[in-house]
Amino acid sequence: MTSHYKLTIEYDGTPFCGFQFQPGMLTVQDELEKALVQINKGIRPKVYVAGRTDTGVHAFAQVVHVTLDTDYNAFKVMNAANHYLRDTLKPQSVSVIDAQLVKKDFHARFSAIERSYVYKIINRQAPIAIDANRAWHVYIKLDVKAMNKAAQFLVGHHDFTSFRSTECQGSTPMKTLDELSVYKAGNFIEIKARSRSFLHHQVRNMVGTLKLVGEGKWVGENIKKALDAKDRRAGGPTAPAHGLYLLDVKY
Amino acid sequence: MTSHYKLTIEYDGTPFCGFQFQPGMLTVQDELEKALVQINKGIRPKVYVAGRTDTGVHAFAQVVHVTLDTDYNAFKVMNAANHYLRDTLKPQSVSVIDAQLVKKDFHARFSAIERSYVYKIINRQAPIAIDANRAWHVYIKLDVKAMNKAAQFLVGHHDFTSFRSTECQGSTPMKTLDELSVYKAGNFIEIKARSRSFLHHQVRNMVGTLKLVGEGKWVGENIKKALDAKDRRAGGPTAPAHGLYLLDVKY
Repeated sequence: MTSHYKLTIEYDGTPFCGFQFQPGMLTVQDELEKALVQINKGIRPKVYVAGRTDTGVHAFAQVVHVTLDTDYNAFKVMNAANHYLRDTLKPQSVSVIDAQLVKKDFHARFSAIERSYVYKIINRQAPIAIDANRAWHVYIKLDVKAMNKAAQFLVGHHDFTSFRSTECQGSTPMKTLDELSVYKAGNFIEIKARSRSFLHHQVRNMVGTLKLVGEGKWVGENIKKALDAKDRRAGGPTAPAHGLYLLDVKY
Repeated sequence: MTSHYKLTIEYDGTPFCGFQFQPGMLTVQDELEKALVQINKGIRPKVYVAGRTDTGVHAFAQVVHVTLDTDYNAFKVMNAANHYLRDTLKPQSVSVIDAQLVKKDFHARFSAIERSYVYKIINRQAPIAIDANRAWHVYIKLDVKAMNKAAQFLVGHHDFTSFRSTECQGSTPMKTLDELSVYKAGNFIEIKARSRSFLHHQVRNMVGTLKLVGEGKWVGENIKKALDAKDRRAGGPTAPAHGLYLLDVKY
């Protein structure tokens, strides 16, 4: 008999060439599928993901689904997957943090109704000793309030062409951004983005552009102008991958 | 001419055998002093620390003082120290995050009027993919409210013999604990401890004992009994070093 599982995954993106399988590369998908072979009668299952992440991007709670040829309960699948991941990866940079038995029509990508990302910045002169691969180190003093105010120009239903990778394969640049907030959180400046779905590099491009506001090179209205231009060249630079975390996926 | 500096230091404790110099071992003090040689006419200066930390313990804001044979301003000392630390340590696991010129009578240890530590726990079944060396991984579900309530028995002026390493060299076991709070913070359970000064292993011993309350093996009153016993054997086990961070030192 086969069973259909929803797995929630945490990973440190540092060692990986992103989520998606690429021959000969270390990817999260490859490690997960190799671990799940062990509880799928030796056959490699296909893992479907809520949102592919790029090289270096982290996830606190990525979601995948997988169909396995077993009647294991979800807890057993979680523990077995972690057992095999621990054997392969040292340190164990991928962990299955939750598992649920779900109906056959559950699809990690197509059933999702909301995705949240958080982008972390450490804003100071000094080098980073803790969290070096976990946040963008920005030297120039950023104005967090100005960034948050400017971010509100991007909230709502818009054509996000100016903030979309030129390699993005999405069928439309129209997206509804439900939240884009910039705030201080302990040693970090965090930028939280929430939407049904995002374009390729959208969060990193929005962050890279908001940094221009934070350092005083742009005023808030420049964000609106960039959006209205519907041209990637009108947006700011792409923030580095290692500050970005997939935070949550809602169904 | 000589100048007297207060330096604030961040470090990831993972690679270090603690703060204090030990011949042939990787220590924070050794790395700092080796870096400062470069701006002290080739002579190794002595660095004095607010609170020595053990192997594996981290610091967001450790404080040291040092006298250097130079008239460099504080900013230049910070940048020079970071330059040499970056050359020696890869990744740069020690960073000077602030520097101040101070009067000759400023002493990192003896002038301090308050020290704060935070202890981080990740409380879940699944292995830790992010922050593996940065928090104590506790599998058994902890009752945070019960831990916080029990912690209040330790706040105040007490004989902390039951929570002091038997190797502690402090002249007295009497300390005034100003705060011991247990709360959820994102993916973590955090325990914050604030006092003029602490005994050796005091925070880790209090945390290890509060865990007994959190998992239901002890009730809150057992904490009071342990305290009253004035015997290390009456306290709970020592929590591991890698969950502990020196958070702040006030002067």
